[in-house]
Amino acid sequence: MPVYSISHIENVRVCVVMVGLPARGKSLIAQKIVRYLSWLSINSKCFNVGAYRRALVSAKGVDATFFDPRNKVGLEYRESAADAAIEDMMKWFVEENGVVGILDATNSRVERRERILHICRANYIEPMFLESWSDDQALILQNIFDVKTTSPDYVDKDESFATHDFLQRIEYYKETYQTMDKARDVDLTFVKLINVNSQIIINRIESYLESRIVYYVMNLHIKPRCIWLSRHGESQYNLTGRIGGDANLSERGWRYAKKLPELVLNSLGEENKHTNLTIWTSTLARTQQTASFLPYKKKLQWKALDELDAGECDGMTYEEIEAKFPEDFKARDDNKYEYRYRGGESYRDIVIRLEPIIMELERQENILIITHQAVLRCIYAYFMNVPQEESPWMSIPLHTLIKLDPRAYSTIVSQMKADIPAVSTYKERGTSQLGESSISSYASKSRDLINNSLSLAKK
Amino acid sequence: MPVYSISHIENVRVCVVMVGLPARGKSLIAQKIVRYLSWLSINSKCFNVGAYRRALVSAKGVDATFFDPRNKVGLEYRESAADAAIEDMMKWFVEENGVVGILDATNSRVERRERILHICRANYIEPMFLESWSDDQALILQNIFDVKTTSPDYVDKDESFATHDFLQRIEYYKETYQTMDKARDVDLTFVKLINVNSQIIINRIESYLESRIVYYVMNLHIKPRCIWLSRHGESQYNLTGRIGGDANLSERGWRYAKKLPELVLNSLGEENKHTNLTIWTSTLARTQQTASFLPYKKKLQWKALDELDAGECDGMTYEEIEAKFPEDFKARDDNKYEYRYRGGESYRDIVIRLEPIIMELERQENILIITHQAVLRCIYAYFMNVPQEESPWMSIPLHTLIKLDPRAYSTIVSQMKADIPAVSTYKERGTSQLGESSISSYASKSRDLINNSLSLAKK
Repeated sequence: MPVYSISHIENVRVCVVMVGLPARGKSLIAQKIVRYLSWLSINSKCFNVGAYRRALVSAKGVDATFFDPRNKVGLEYRESAADAAIEDMMKWFVEENGVVGILDATNSRVERRERILHICRANYIEPMFLESWSDDQALILQNIFDVKTTSPDYVDKDESFATHDFLQRIEYYKETYQTMDKARDVDLTFVKLINVNSQIIINRIESYLESRIVYYVMNLHIKPRCIWLSRHGESQYNLTGRIGGDANLSERGWRYAKKLPELVLNSLGEENKHTNLTIWTSTLARTQQTASFLPYKKKLQWKALDELDAGECDGMTYEEIEAKFPEDFKARDDNKYEYRYRGGESYRDIVIRLEPIIMELERQENILIITHQAVLRCIYAYFMNVPQEESPWMSIPLHTLIKLDPRAYSTIVSQMKADIPAVSTYKERGTSQLGESSISSYASKSRDLINNSLSLAKK
Repeated sequence: MPVYSISHIENVRVCVVMVGLPARGKSLIAQKIVRYLSWLSINSKCFNVGAYRRALVSAKGVDATFFDPRNKVGLEYRESAADAAIEDMMKWFVEENGVVGILDATNSRVERRERILHICRANYIEPMFLESWSDDQALILQNIFDVKTTSPDYVDKDESFATHDFLQRIEYYKETYQTMDKARDVDLTFVKLINVNSQIIINRIESYLESRIVYYVMNLHIKPRCIWLSRHGESQYNLTGRIGGDANLSERGWRYAKKLPELVLNSLGEENKHTNLTIWTSTLARTQQTASFLPYKKKLQWKALDELDAGECDGMTYEEIEAKFPEDFKARDDNKYEYRYRGGESYRDIVIRLEPIIMELERQENILIITHQAVLRCIYAYFMNVPQEESPWMSIPLHTLIKLDPRAYSTIVSQMKADIPAVSTYKERGTSQLGESSISSYASKSRDLINNSLSLAKK
């Protein structure tokens, strides 16, 4: 009897069918949903029809006229691309046990949506239409800017050409666009987002999975903000290599706590130095001590941010664990994400208890989180889309502030190291020894490199 | 720095203004929201304008003509009642630190809603309109049946009179009713539920509290179903009075596990004996062993259903805890809900981790939960509206199956005792001795009596 997270309660497979004109943020929403569900171990994948179209027709040859509804050749290619994407998705549901597939395309006409509906039903997949509708010109212009600077359709194209061409493309789509209609579509499962989430219409949401997706989307905002992450300063337990417990900071840990306000200020830059941050810590002394010199008024403690519970191994060193529970020690190395300490937790357990924290993070603006190695790995994995099998092995050293700056299709990661030595708490696979606290020991193998410089990580 | 649950992140106070014709389930929704938020320690209260009206005008003198929009005297009384309810709510926000007040009334005209809006804004309260709209005749008739059998307006009235009079009252309201309008009300925060939650329109939800209320309401359903609760069978640890751990069942515990299928069957009755239940257990051996003879296929393990983590006291008896940590032992007796074991959990912590379970329970149909004493107390407290200071002291004996049968305005509780002896695990306040496992030891003092007969507990 496997252990279920709240996400595995039903035997439902969902096809999220995006609907909307170009530049309404559809791809962004689709990608965020995939990232969120994947982090919750729900097998999900986005199928972008544009990518299929580009595989059929070289992007170089495509300008707005390709999308003119009177262009028969264009229409044929676009239909073939859509069909190929849907076919691949249906294959993926069967062959790779897909749970949530997202069809990222305009799907702007009723006829097309009915065709998708038909295919889904024939394959026992629940279709859920997710429309992004907007008449907010500032929002649309921002999306146009994001698309033309990131879309493969406009690589190597003149900026002014790209803008005009893309606007023309939108006009062509408008000619035939049919928005989801409360009366006509009353029997369908659909969500209609109006200007991000100023207004939301939700129709016939039935399964748990669908309700989670809706709740997630409801909580997204697009205001610019950053998230800062730090482990607590070096603790007394860290000095002796013990895990768990509720120890105080070491002398060097206190030095980091005193240094932290300066690191945060530097990361804000001169023009934003008065930005107001909210501080989140765990309920354990070492995170609160680390936060104690920060000059921000709003400090919240979350039990959900407490370190992974090592159960019977709480307070032991890795050498002691290896000696006392050699089989467990090996089992944990074999599958660190799933391994649950006797009477304690696994990484999967942490992800489940962090889920409300992630939801809240999506709602909030500037937050600095001071927490623990395993918890920080899980939060970082969510934002940077690090796969499950890798996230428990990421090296996140002590005395280092990480800043995440989420942009439309990427997150800028920067890392500020305080010049205060600390022990390493990084245990390589297959040893009970703690290694050098070197970021590169893991990160060089990771596809989400954390390094001292700015890095642009594709989400 | 107090410990925050996810519900305390903002400094927002909300007035939920119910909107809708009579018999649209407004009071039911209002009461469920209050129960849910109270369980999450969010101070909330429902102000029912009908009750204020009855205090002004004896219910006996009121028939449908009172609600005729042309009846000036009736109109005056109704306005006075509404004003008094709002005034009391505003007082409650200030004097009793109210967080979510619900104004339960039809609020069916724009003029009235604008007046409420004005008062809320003047008092720095966020108004959120929650409309229940329905054209589903079966649903409306069910609500009419619920209202006329429970409303104080129809006590001692002839049933046929009550039905006709209530239908006439609805007709009078229809004459002036103005539904929430996407265009006119675009700047307001509102939720419009159409036929329970077949369709939901959500407009300008901004605060976290509001989003939680919306998500909760989204997940409600009105299909009839029952929830069964049981503690695991007596465990080896129970025999020696130890808490925590992951012990196996005792011989008597195994006998209870074998008996459980019969108890469940009896509780279903002959006509429902083929009802399909889903079994939820914790991840601990004793709950899974207790579930092992149940003939239902769907069994799920939830980490969130694990027993309260006693931290450093795990595996100890109450005598040992009293001897080793006398101050903690006393502190726990003084405030059992808030007391957090060293390195472990409090009842409040359990409620936070149970929140997704409760949300899922609202979505599901027939569920049997096999879990642990403290967790079961918290779940029971949610359904039966047991106050925080009482719930940790409820006696829920071993080898007893509890069935909750939620109805419109009440929950029928029945309790089936297996005739298999078990130790008592009930510790009275101020002692380390375990008492007789007598339900009456607590329940006689409780306002939510659990007894061996059927009891109708008002929600």
